[in-house]
Amino acid sequence: MNAEIITIGDEILIGQIVDTNSAYIAKELNKIGVSVHQITSVEDEWNHILTTLSEAQKRADIVIITGGLGPTKDDITKKCLCEFFNDTLVKDEVVLAHVEELFKKYIDTPISDLNRMQALVPSKAEVLKNSFGTAPGMWLKKDDTVFISMPGVPYEMKALMQDEVIPRIRQRFKRPFILHKTVLTFGMGESAIAEKIESWEEALPAHIRLAYLPNLGKVRLRLSTKGSDPEKMEQEVDDQITSLCQIIGDIIKGVEEEDPIEVQIGNLLKEKNASLATAESFTGGRLASIFTKYAGSSSFFKGSVVAYATEAKVNILGVSQDLIDKNSVVSNEVACEMARKVKALYQTDYAIATTGNAGPSKGDSDADVGTVVLAIATPDDVFAREFNFGNHRDKVVGKAVNKCMELVLDEIYSHK
Amino acid sequence: MNAEIITIGDEILIGQIVDTNSAYIAKELNKIGVSVHQITSVEDEWNHILTTLSEAQKRADIVIITGGLGPTKDDITKKCLCEFFNDTLVKDEVVLAHVEELFKKYIDTPISDLNRMQALVPSKAEVLKNSFGTAPGMWLKKDDTVFISMPGVPYEMKALMQDEVIPRIRQRFKRPFILHKTVLTFGMGESAIAEKIESWEEALPAHIRLAYLPNLGKVRLRLSTKGSDPEKMEQEVDDQITSLCQIIGDIIKGVEEEDPIEVQIGNLLKEKNASLATAESFTGGRLASIFTKYAGSSSFFKGSVVAYATEAKVNILGVSQDLIDKNSVVSNEVACEMARKVKALYQTDYAIATTGNAGPSKGDSDADVGTVVLAIATPDDVFAREFNFGNHRDKVVGKAVNKCMELVLDEIYSHK
Repeated sequence: MNAEIITIGDEILIGQIVDTNSAYIAKELNKIGVSVHQITSVEDEWNHILTTLSEAQKRADIVIITGGLGPTKDDITKKCLCEFFNDTLVKDEVVLAHVEELFKKYIDTPISDLNRMQALVPSKAEVLKNSFGTAPGMWLKKDDTVFISMPGVPYEMKALMQDEVIPRIRQRFKRPFILHKTVLTFGMGESAIAEKIESWEEALPAHIRLAYLPNLGKVRLRLSTKGSDPEKMEQEVDDQITSLCQIIGDIIKGVEEEDPIEVQIGNLLKEKNASLATAESFTGGRLASIFTKYAGSSSFFKGSVVAYATEAKVNILGVSQDLIDKNSVVSNEVACEMARKVKALYQTDYAIATTGNAGPSKGDSDADVGTVVLAIATPDDVFAREFNFGNHRDKVVGKAVNKCMELVLDEIYSHK
Repeated sequence: MNAEIITIGDEILIGQIVDTNSAYIAKELNKIGVSVHQITSVEDEWNHILTTLSEAQKRADIVIITGGLGPTKDDITKKCLCEFFNDTLVKDEVVLAHVEELFKKYIDTPISDLNRMQALVPSKAEVLKNSFGTAPGMWLKKDDTVFISMPGVPYEMKALMQDEVIPRIRQRFKRPFILHKTVLTFGMGESAIAEKIESWEEALPAHIRLAYLPNLGKVRLRLSTKGSDPEKMEQEVDDQITSLCQIIGDIIKGVEEEDPIEVQIGNLLKEKNASLATAESFTGGRLASIFTKYAGSSSFFKGSVVAYATEAKVNILGVSQDLIDKNSVVSNEVACEMARKVKALYQTDYAIATTGNAGPSKGDSDADVGTVVLAIATPDDVFAREFNFGNHRDKVVGKAVNKCMELVLDEIYSHK
């Protein structure tokens, strides 16, 4: 079962947007045992699209295409599909009714002929309903390869994947199971880990693949396998992780299956009926926006004070100017006080506070570029740690966010 | 001048990470007149990498490769390059000294043989210095195609692009100029715009391409052209934009060249020596984290109160419980009061406040899923507007963030 993804659109090739659709589609396909071997992004250009379609056909059983289905002239995917399948466009009455309804309900401007043309589909296509937009999904077959075309708008594509594409692939293809488990480690570099676990790695059976995924102070170790017996696969991988824990248990902070660390933190807090707030200086709301990305986060995440300027630390958080003058705004004392204050303000059980200088130049304090202090307040304690995360703004903020997640997860665990 | 990008790594194909490198590289190449015609992502798999390299060679003058350069066994790009170029690995003393220095300065664990092996490079490669990591960049040539290999870590790749790759491409290739200008519109759908500007679009000269980029309540119209005379190109495109303004000037909010709207807002505020704060309920710090992403934002962005829970709106922002009980927490009155309060707290000239229900279920208020109220406080006024942004959490937050940017930019403009 080989799948490929083709994303179409000039905006991708000139770097105006990041293609996030491919990662989503790849992940969803993996869950149901379909591996993706190639992702190809091409322009809205007739010949290039046609060549890409026929190249993909040679290699893949399933080809998923996104983009190029808008109502305007620059979108040509539907016409390319007609050419590729030697087909013509016909009006689909169900789609037309849906387009008309969308316009009645949500759109102020009157419906136009361009909009109605969204209901034209290749006659050989099985139409997939796009609940959130006017461009329908399409399911087509050429020889032994299935081609699935979807709009590039992320939330429309996601709904189509969940409601139409995944169920059909499940029904129509016999698939193996694919299992990935990712062990999360903090505090050691990938090469140091590789040396420590060398003999374990060499003894891994051939059907279990290991990958190292380093990212700003954390390294994830991903174990992947494929097969027909999911229980046996799970057992095998779990056994390998158990052996791994005997070697580097001190740096392992958990096993990710689906959940990123912020979701693990949320789940733990919910279990314990505990809550969290953040006081953010140089992280500028990044922590808050990560926690609130998920539905249901309001049950544990109470809010944040983004105190970017020093006066905000004084006026809003209530850190005393005196404390700042005595210790510098980037100091353990100020970070701890920020954590204490925001915990009291939001009446939470835990709090994270960040202060530091992300660069590129010196800020309100004399702290070197890259110097940050992170503080964690727990139900009965508060502590801070100082780091230097280097001289690159994105790196400093990214590493600090990861480190905060690690520190707070540790505390919540240990207060179990 | 045809370029292609190849990104290598299982983590991309299983959807564990989003490939953001390609967009960055494509954008930077475009700036110097190099168009990217294809982006291909493949696994860490020997034969697939080799095939992809030779396919790309047939089509492109420049092939940029990222990923697969780590010190661990799953990374095989360097060995694949050796095979493809019929070459062997040799030790580069300069790289070795750099790796040793990085370990001395920044890394606690002692340097190992695996780390030292990062200094091995194909003998035919011109080595490109990676200031921020151990894996060097490599510049290789086969027939008429240049292959450039870089690590996949984004900040290492970006520094390599700026310091090593772009300067060499500038020097060694004769390139045309590429010009993109993007007109930012708000408040009208893409098909409605297409109808309004149909005759203008049809009269566009063949060498100017138009693309519609709809995104959550805003539509960007991108004009692209290529040529040898940048001044003439700029003039031509500007003339077209002037004609466009005569047709749909009411919905045009500006022309993006490089700057996203948040940077435009920042620049305007800096010009006027004015400042901004945000009070965020369902946007959960997203606005703050967007503004603070940029170095120098502290000169206009003073901070945010993320008041996710109703009690935080009362306790921290100081909105009266009475006002909330009378009007509901998702109301014009409460949004305006949040904006007023946060403006006073941070002593700023402008403030944005958000309250609403992003879904998927009803929250603290009775507001329907998707109902949001956005308020803007200006130096002498405050107003709020209510919207329903549909039934999808990401969509609601994304549309609201865009709408806030639009509303506040309008206000800052009109207070000029």
